[in-house]
Amino acid sequence: TPTTRTESDSIGPIDVPADAYWGAQTERSLENFPFGARERMPIGIVHALAIVKKAAARINRGHGLSAEKADAIEAAAQEVIDGRHDDQFPLVIWQTGSGTQSNMNANEVIAGRANEMLTGTRGGKSPVHPNDDVNRGQSSNDTFPTALHVAAALAVTRQLLPALDRLHAALDAKAKAWDSIVKIGRTHLQDATPLTLGQEFSGYVQQLAHARDRIEGALHRNILPLAQGGTAVGTGLNAPHGFAEAIAAEIADATGLDFVTAPNKFEALASNDGLVDLHGTLNVLAVALTKIANDIRLLGSGPRSGLGELELPANEPGSSIMPGKVNPTQCEMLTMVAAQVIGNNAAVTVGGLQGHLELNVFKPLIGANVLRSIHLLAVGMESFATRTVEGMTVDRDRIAALLDRSLMLVTALAPEIGYDNAAKIAKHAHQKGLTLKQAGLELGLVDEATFDRVVRPEAMLGR
Amino acid sequence: TPTTRTESDSIGPIDVPADAYWGAQTERSLENFPFGARERMPIGIVHALAIVKKAAARINRGHGLSAEKADAIEAAAQEVIDGRHDDQFPLVIWQTGSGTQSNMNANEVIAGRANEMLTGTRGGKSPVHPNDDVNRGQSSNDTFPTALHVAAALAVTRQLLPALDRLHAALDAKAKAWDSIVKIGRTHLQDATPLTLGQEFSGYVQQLAHARDRIEGALHRNILPLAQGGTAVGTGLNAPHGFAEAIAAEIADATGLDFVTAPNKFEALASNDGLVDLHGTLNVLAVALTKIANDIRLLGSGPRSGLGELELPANEPGSSIMPGKVNPTQCEMLTMVAAQVIGNNAAVTVGGLQGHLELNVFKPLIGANVLRSIHLLAVGMESFATRTVEGMTVDRDRIAALLDRSLMLVTALAPEIGYDNAAKIAKHAHQKGLTLKQAGLELGLVDEATFDRVVRPEAMLGR
Ligand SMILES: O=C(O)/C=C/C(=O)O
Ligand SMILES: O=C(O)/C=C/C(=O)O
Repeated sequence: TPTTRTESDSIGPIDVPADAYWGAQTERSLENFPFGARERMPIGIVHALAIVKKAAARINRGHGLSAEKADAIEAAAQEVIDGRHDDQFPLVIWQTGSGTQSNMNANEVIAGRANEMLTGTRGGKSPVHPNDDVNRGQSSNDTFPTALHVAAALAVTRQLLPALDRLHAALDAKAKAWDSIVKIGRTHLQDATPLTLGQEFSGYVQQLAHARDRIEGALHRNILPLAQGGTAVGTGLNAPHGFAEAIAAEIADATGLDFVTAPNKFEALASNDGLVDLHGTLNVLAVALTKIANDIRLLGSGPRSGLGELELPANEPGSSIMPGKVNPTQCEMLTMVAAQVIGNNAAVTVGGLQGHLELNVFKPLIGANVLRSIHLLAVGMESFATRTVEGMTVDRDRIAALLDRSLMLVTALAPEIGYDNAAKIAKHAHQKGLTLKQAGLELGLVDEATFDRVVRPEAMLGR
Repeated sequence: TPTTRTESDSIGPIDVPADAYWGAQTERSLENFPFGARERMPIGIVHALAIVKKAAARINRGHGLSAEKADAIEAAAQEVIDGRHDDQFPLVIWQTGSGTQSNMNANEVIAGRANEMLTGTRGGKSPVHPNDDVNRGQSSNDTFPTALHVAAALAVTRQLLPALDRLHAALDAKAKAWDSIVKIGRTHLQDATPLTLGQEFSGYVQQLAHARDRIEGALHRNILPLAQGGTAVGTGLNAPHGFAEAIAAEIADATGLDFVTAPNKFEALASNDGLVDLHGTLNVLAVALTKIANDIRLLGSGPRSGLGELELPANEPGSSIMPGKVNPTQCEMLTMVAAQVIGNNAAVTVGGLQGHLELNVFKPLIGANVLRSIHLLAVGMESFATRTVEGMTVDRDRIAALLDRSLMLVTALAPEIGYDNAAKIAKHAHQKGLTLKQAGLELGLVDEATFDRVVRPEAMLGR
């Protein structure tokens, strides 16, 4: 049996592997953009393209596509959605900026599989033609950004938000469990007035709650509206009347998400501002996670020569050379992931600000970065929650000792004896190695009864 | 036969696949950082780790490592360098920030294969121990950044610079071939004084020459110096005297590149400034390529309603909906690649500016981005050179027609009749749809002989 067969496109004939469902345009793109398998278009985008193709076939059957072809296209697309043909999508991110070749890859594979269902012969253009039938009423220019929105919305709702919720819950549980552990606060990395460990953690919990709101806001504002129906330049040429509204409804139905048609198709093709906005909310999340993970590794620094207020779980041997060392590896993973997301945000921004006139031609770059950032953040947050936050413990003795020695409890005295006198007490205590009380009495700036009434950390918590 | 065997580390026993060369620490990392195969540590870093391990064994045999073990370690490391065990390195980028787990993956696989060579049994820690023998005299903290430098230097010299040279040569050939084609210049996207197409392209050629200089400068300044020998914190504890110099010489010998030992090991572990600098030069290259590719697609815009001075090769059907359309897909690929590199530069910067005290713990992030950027730029430039630049042609008629209608040839008249009179001629010509000559004569601001003597585009080229 031959190992190749010949397919053709408007450039001419080309050999493709005999067992491939794809056709000439996919094969040509593989040759023209030789970046290798590691740079493949994320599979979430491929599955989303198939969701669009299936929805289009359902509508097109009312507009001149035969029931036989429509059935076959829908069945083939469903197989792609189910992940049964992932190996048939070898194209890379770095291709045409409209995603035309990935769109054609989907058209060719779905046509090639539909033809196999109808005739027993794999591939080709008959009876189901990749452009005339599978791509019917569509252009890459509306289909690809639609697929990016569908893929992003599914990844946000199925991966990102559940992981965020898990981390939110883990931090919230700690905030509640540690609500009454009074500890020294630190600002500018210098000792400040006290707060509880639970109060400190409640700030992290709120950061995540805000991050969730931003992501959901971007999702609803920008990602649920779909470009489909604009075809080549936004006018909708070659799409039947009502196609845009109908396909948004079909896709909403298929995914359970409230997709709608975009209010202006010129904006939806010419810009990717919506995806840039969504990635911007991922950028903020990355910033928040960096602050949280940095704090946790700082509070967990030690075990003997650091702050040592927290003890982090030992998930693996920390060092290849230092026996028995334990490292905050989940914090390191999460902050590296966050740095990548911040970088991806720059890439998405650079892509978003370019493009000319009727089409932004940085769509694969933007889509791939949005999906990668979501994946990294989702896995990173879930792992951080389960492997660090949930297993963290507190060194209550250490926290009490540090609180006890703190000079900034003196702040509570200021309203009684004035800022300047209170400062003298703190300075004297620091210089002579005294407690605040010893220093205050020695300087005669406060009496014991006042001191004991006022300098009580548990009364300094704003509650 | 059982499908797993039990290995152990300081955390305890753990099952690994029976046919794996790796041990407990690799297996644990796989579980603790579940990002999936797409996020694997770039294989160039794995091969570079094996180069380091082989060089270390050569030196350690003079310092208490038995010849039998050293031979086996060298042989096993060489197999890894040759790419025979790529599937044995499943760990991802997102792990410990020191790369400890990838270092241990290399230690375990090399020990596991060396043990198989010596005893017939795969894996384990005897007679060759991953830490005591393969990692001898090393820490991840010096080994991993050394491997990043080796991998980066090899990728720069073997992939990036050859591709850059190819694109440089392709653009230079066009600059020379088109040296006498006089065309209208444009500044601010508005018509300006003339130049030749060759002059215009010579600017691109110079951009690439400068980019090459910057990359080579960063390579020599920053990347050839190696951290190895600093061990855990830069002091070199547990490494024999002279290890740093000896291993740099070994690695230079093995790779043919002029590696040296870093002048200060504290800097080499605590910072990754050198890799940040190297990536900065990739960032400039990305900026340069964006300008060049944008110019080429602008000059090639059309075919009927654009500037139309260049004709770009048709590599594939451009559109899924518009039959016969040809698009500047290689320009789109290259500018997307550049946007990613600019994003990666932000990620590397964010990683580089963090880390605490004796160790920067963003090393895997930084190394992976440097290697990915090099790969994207190398493949992108090579493809752009062969699939667009080399095959571009000029529309001489179009260039002549645009030149002919240009109003800014009037600039040459300014020294003769003054800026204000020349401006009157240009404005009059534009308003009435006249040639410059017609307008000048009609306004009586220049005589025909002067006009014909002065307004000659071929005399306006600065030659
Ligand atoms: O893996 C090492 O060699 C060192 C790690 C650390 O500094 O903890
Ligand atoms: O692939 C398309 O449908 C359109 C591409 C283009 O605008 O050229």
